[in-house]
Amino acid sequence: MSVLKGACLFGQSGGPTSVINASAAGVFLEALKHDEITDIFGAAHGIKGILDEKFYDMRKEDPRELELLKSTPSSALGSVRYKLKAAEEDETDYIRIYEVFKKYNIRYFFYNGGNDSMDTCNKISKYLQSKNYECRIIGVPKTIDNDLVGTDHCPGFGSAAKYVATTMMELYLDTHVYNTPLVTIVEVMGRNAGWLTGAACLADYKGYGPDLIYLPERVFSVEGFLDDLKRVASRKKGKVLAVISEGVKDDKGRYISEYQSELDRDSFGHVQLGGAAVVLGGIVSDRLNVKVRPIEFSLMQRCAAHIASATDREEAFMAGAMAVRYAIQGNTDKMVAFARDEKSASYRIDYVLVDLSVTANAEKKVPLSWINPDNSGLTSDFVDYALPLIQGEGEYPTEDGMPRFARLKKVPAGRR
Amino acid sequence: MSVLKGACLFGQSGGPTSVINASAAGVFLEALKHDEITDIFGAAHGIKGILDEKFYDMRKEDPRELELLKSTPSSALGSVRYKLKAAEEDETDYIRIYEVFKKYNIRYFFYNGGNDSMDTCNKISKYLQSKNYECRIIGVPKTIDNDLVGTDHCPGFGSAAKYVATTMMELYLDTHVYNTPLVTIVEVMGRNAGWLTGAACLADYKGYGPDLIYLPERVFSVEGFLDDLKRVASRKKGKVLAVISEGVKDDKGRYISEYQSELDRDSFGHVQLGGAAVVLGGIVSDRLNVKVRPIEFSLMQRCAAHIASATDREEAFMAGAMAVRYAIQGNTDKMVAFARDEKSASYRIDYVLVDLSVTANAEKKVPLSWINPDNSGLTSDFVDYALPLIQGEGEYPTEDGMPRFARLKKVPAGRR
Repeated sequence: MSVLKGACLFGQSGGPTSVINASAAGVFLEALKHDEITDIFGAAHGIKGILDEKFYDMRKEDPRELELLKSTPSSALGSVRYKLKAAEEDETDYIRIYEVFKKYNIRYFFYNGGNDSMDTCNKISKYLQSKNYECRIIGVPKTIDNDLVGTDHCPGFGSAAKYVATTMMELYLDTHVYNTPLVTIVEVMGRNAGWLTGAACLADYKGYGPDLIYLPERVFSVEGFLDDLKRVASRKKGKVLAVISEGVKDDKGRYISEYQSELDRDSFGHVQLGGAAVVLGGIVSDRLNVKVRPIEFSLMQRCAAHIASATDREEAFMAGAMAVRYAIQGNTDKMVAFARDEKSASYRIDYVLVDLSVTANAEKKVPLSWINPDNSGLTSDFVDYALPLIQGEGEYPTEDGMPRFARLKKVPAGRR
Repeated sequence: MSVLKGACLFGQSGGPTSVINASAAGVFLEALKHDEITDIFGAAHGIKGILDEKFYDMRKEDPRELELLKSTPSSALGSVRYKLKAAEEDETDYIRIYEVFKKYNIRYFFYNGGNDSMDTCNKISKYLQSKNYECRIIGVPKTIDNDLVGTDHCPGFGSAAKYVATTMMELYLDTHVYNTPLVTIVEVMGRNAGWLTGAACLADYKGYGPDLIYLPERVFSVEGFLDDLKRVASRKKGKVLAVISEGVKDDKGRYISEYQSELDRDSFGHVQLGGAAVVLGGIVSDRLNVKVRPIEFSLMQRCAAHIASATDREEAFMAGAMAVRYAIQGNTDKMVAFARDEKSASYRIDYVLVDLSVTANAEKKVPLSWINPDNSGLTSDFVDYALPLIQGEGEYPTEDGMPRFARLKKVPAGRR
């Protein structure tokens, strides 16, 4: 193993999760243990912070506050959605990144995000290699969408799934208190992959679940949906609890949420902000003349750290810590991934490495064989897969009956 | 004190809360202790269960399951929205109620609900008295709206307020991760009283709060709102987190949520299901040309038992238990109320009785002096009032990483 001395840089990218900062804590607290790492920088707003040369000196933070990052949702350093162009197409950003890395002697770069972020890591790594600048680059996975290829699951998914399952159970009880017909349509995040929407089936597994679940992996038909509703309603005294992914599309590839906005845009020129549940709810109300309540889990599903999965939080932390350990050992151009030990009787994962190129820009979807033949529910394979990921209550310190989040000083890093 | 032997009946009414079943547990577990109470019945769907003679025999339930009611949200017996006509106007329901009470020898009646339910209690009591049928009737308060007169606060409010405060803190972090302008508009329940919407200021008290809060106690002006947004946006790099009550109305008394539905109804004849946040979001998006995210806390704010306030849960339980004790002592025509000991250095309440007629059909609103002069926030008086009510994490048993709710057998009661 070759010893590489220098600064480490960590950045957060893409949509936040309840446990994304647990990975940050993993990176920072592990980095503090290694003499090879001379400085620990946090990039403000991910790749944007590199281009703008906006770094925080994480050594100046109180280690107790770094510990509190474990239960602090959303991206503490700030996030960004920024897609690097190919270097052959436009070298500007790469020249700037190379310059900044040299200036701060950054030799370890950890980037926390989804498939776009892994693509970013990959491109930066290739460019620095072409300049013979030695830098070990490891991606740390993160996404409530759970759609990264090469890993059993992704940090952030378990906590979002626990939110969905628990909230669905609570909503089941709430929507069944009156003796009158009611169609409830809950919209869950996940544009192209139905993992998080599928987690609603965990509530059903406990007996408090939705009657119908629709993933974006299958074509969605409004007429089919109305038929399904009528079928369930006739069996259950008019009470139906349905869950749809925000990303369900019809056979022409059109998102359901686009149905109404097009109408509204045409006639009034103003924007209609309702999502798929609101739009579909309007159609159901019109066509079936029944009381409908559309519900969107909105941002809550990705930031409800108060109901984080302890398993997810621990794995997110370890993903960050293992990224540092693997880099110190000489690895680069990899992403930390979770390999489930299928031979173990109880749930167990190993922290392994996969090539960045494997995850970059690919999407893992729910296997079609895990979706019921009638397209409106999940099989027990899904339950077996997802149940271990939501185990354990992620404790969080409180102050005045509210969460005590990490308070970072965010001291700007001085140049070396 | 006169001894009155007979059956006790308990019913749940109106919109559910996270802790309404804690009051049920209080009634049932306390009733089990008293020899005067010969039977314990639960009415299915409140007053409807009386009219339909649909009672559960609560003595047949496992006491451990009754304990679990404390952390089981929503109305376990089923709820109802049913307003009794005045007896002078239509005696039918009263004749039926009298008949059923006699048949089951019901001598203790406890009804859990808001001001409508207290009105129901009051009317039934007066009617039974006119028939010389002795029955002690005590109301148990319940409402996330916190709008009952005669009590410092209402069971259910503290837990909903804790949900609002905590979720608002999480949303604050989530909506601040990107370096780009974003207006977030969160809609909170409370048609005429702004207590729950006001609870958003607790997040601000911790430093993670909304910039603007609008209660229904004040007239809402869309133009004023746009001005407020522009003012905050210019100060905070385009980032604004605003909270509105579902019940905000303009100077003509029109709900904001009605603005768009009228338009839509006119042109397409279909129903628009978006609430105030969605409608207002569309207007902001049009007028200010900025990215807007409307969020509705929807049913979650009233059923999220996983984040119940331990204080609220305990008080809800005690409200039920005290109703039984007070009735056994000979009281009737009262509601259990909370009196805050203003002289005590720490938070302390006494369980007292108020006349049903005091709370029936009245609404307590947020004092106007607790609203900032610019109408877009709350004073420290509100924080002092609400903070004690959200203290303590309401623990809940889990199974498979999800809540373990009470499982009632609901054995139909045999007639006496």
